[in-house]
Amino acid sequence: MLVNGEQGNLISIRDRGLLYGDGVFRTIRASQGHALYWPLHYQKLQLDCTALDIPCVDFASLSVELNGLLLKHPDGVFKLIVTRGHGTRGYAPPTTVEPTHIWGVTPLPEYPADWVVRGIKARMCRLRLSQQPRLAGIKHLNRLENVLAGAESNDAEVAEGLLMDAEGNIIEGIRSNLFLVSRRNLVTPDLSRCGVAGVQRDRVMAWAAQHNMPLQVRDVGLDEVMNADEVFVVNSVIGLWPVRELEQRRWTDFPVAAQIRQYLDEQDAE
Amino acid sequence: MLVNGEQGNLISIRDRGLLYGDGVFRTIRASQGHALYWPLHYQKLQLDCTALDIPCVDFASLSVELNGLLLKHPDGVFKLIVTRGHGTRGYAPPTTVEPTHIWGVTPLPEYPADWVVRGIKARMCRLRLSQQPRLAGIKHLNRLENVLAGAESNDAEVAEGLLMDAEGNIIEGIRSNLFLVSRRNLVTPDLSRCGVAGVQRDRVMAWAAQHNMPLQVRDVGLDEVMNADEVFVVNSVIGLWPVRELEQRRWTDFPVAAQIRQYLDEQDAE
Repeated sequence: MLVNGEQGNLISIRDRGLLYGDGVFRTIRASQGHALYWPLHYQKLQLDCTALDIPCVDFASLSVELNGLLLKHPDGVFKLIVTRGHGTRGYAPPTTVEPTHIWGVTPLPEYPADWVVRGIKARMCRLRLSQQPRLAGIKHLNRLENVLAGAESNDAEVAEGLLMDAEGNIIEGIRSNLFLVSRRNLVTPDLSRCGVAGVQRDRVMAWAAQHNMPLQVRDVGLDEVMNADEVFVVNSVIGLWPVRELEQRRWTDFPVAAQIRQYLDEQDAE
Repeated sequence: MLVNGEQGNLISIRDRGLLYGDGVFRTIRASQGHALYWPLHYQKLQLDCTALDIPCVDFASLSVELNGLLLKHPDGVFKLIVTRGHGTRGYAPPTTVEPTHIWGVTPLPEYPADWVVRGIKARMCRLRLSQQPRLAGIKHLNRLENVLAGAESNDAEVAEGLLMDAEGNIIEGIRSNLFLVSRRNLVTPDLSRCGVAGVQRDRVMAWAAQHNMPLQVRDVGLDEVMNADEVFVVNSVIGLWPVRELEQRRWTDFPVAAQIRQYLDEQDAE
């Protein structure tokens, strides 16, 4: 663990990351000494910092720290947090901000191997996401909705919960972005009112562009998910999981998802 | 500062309070060695913990710690944070929770003395609060909306910003609860979809009950605020501030607010 570039696993109780969730983060997979898509993750980190007006730590410094950590932990899940740092009392950001940045490393989680191929069991969450356009898309530290949604089930067989907003639009998984395949079209929910836009989502969108597959980013209802030819979820740690079971619905074939997964895997291995 | 009962001002970067804002807090005013309305604050802390299924630290232990701190800091702002503690990676709460609890003390802020009597200048925030019934009323650590609203103005003359939700209901101040006096009725916004229900709000509601003043808790629009006879904001640190200026509207007399303030002050001094 590194806190502001120094070995350590403690931060001040005055840090606005703790006090207000005033910060952003990324979750990055490291494989054989490489942090997959680190420049893309940094780009998103920087965009998210800008959206919250937090000065981002520069790419070069973070890369040096990351490379040091990769020597010790060639495989694992790297979490990078950037907060607005210390502050005087009160919600308004201080005029001068010294951001805090934190690296944490945990072992790669071990999921059943067949989830990647046969697909996962998913559920619909009861919690509905709130709509906040000012925070939509940002991977920020206000994640109580995800916590509450995650707490709804402790069934280890259920790999992911899908979230709707208050209006019934399907938005994402608790820890993943969602795609549908519908009549040879890729569809992924619009994230302009809620949800988190992950790096893996961008990569799937890039795949679609490269493979001339029509892609729609728009509102998606539950009916459309249930009627889709394929449903899959993505994030930087799990990669891509097809959904084989969602409430009463079953899917058995995932030709498009398998093609995208292969592409992602091949890119990861490069 | 105390962290889990020990002197210190550091917490682990694995604490879910930092990672997800997975915790709750209270802000308490200490005056002449007394923490004002500590039992009421504890009651709300406990309710908020229950709402998030966080085991709350017991009243006796917290009271012992508080009394120790009051000996050293007879006057000040005491912030008490309770988080869901450490966790394994992932949003879902761990099966066994050891909550973290943190006491922080800062000096009482110095506000212009005439704000209490002549009233404050307030503004309408551009940010709209999102509606999340599962989190409404809870003083939790996901406070990015307050941060963004606070960042909208750095005019030191503007003491508070008032917040609407996406539907245009007036909900609260950035750091306070709101009351209107309208034809000898007290009105305060319904907080069942967003907002934070503070101890001071309860105390004003108790005053209304004791003084046979009709009190309505319901949706309030901007028009109603602008047409109110009196508008005032309350929280545990500031006490009660009448609003003398909100955008184009001016108020000069605050007979009911003054009466309530006197009652609160007298209770505080007991």
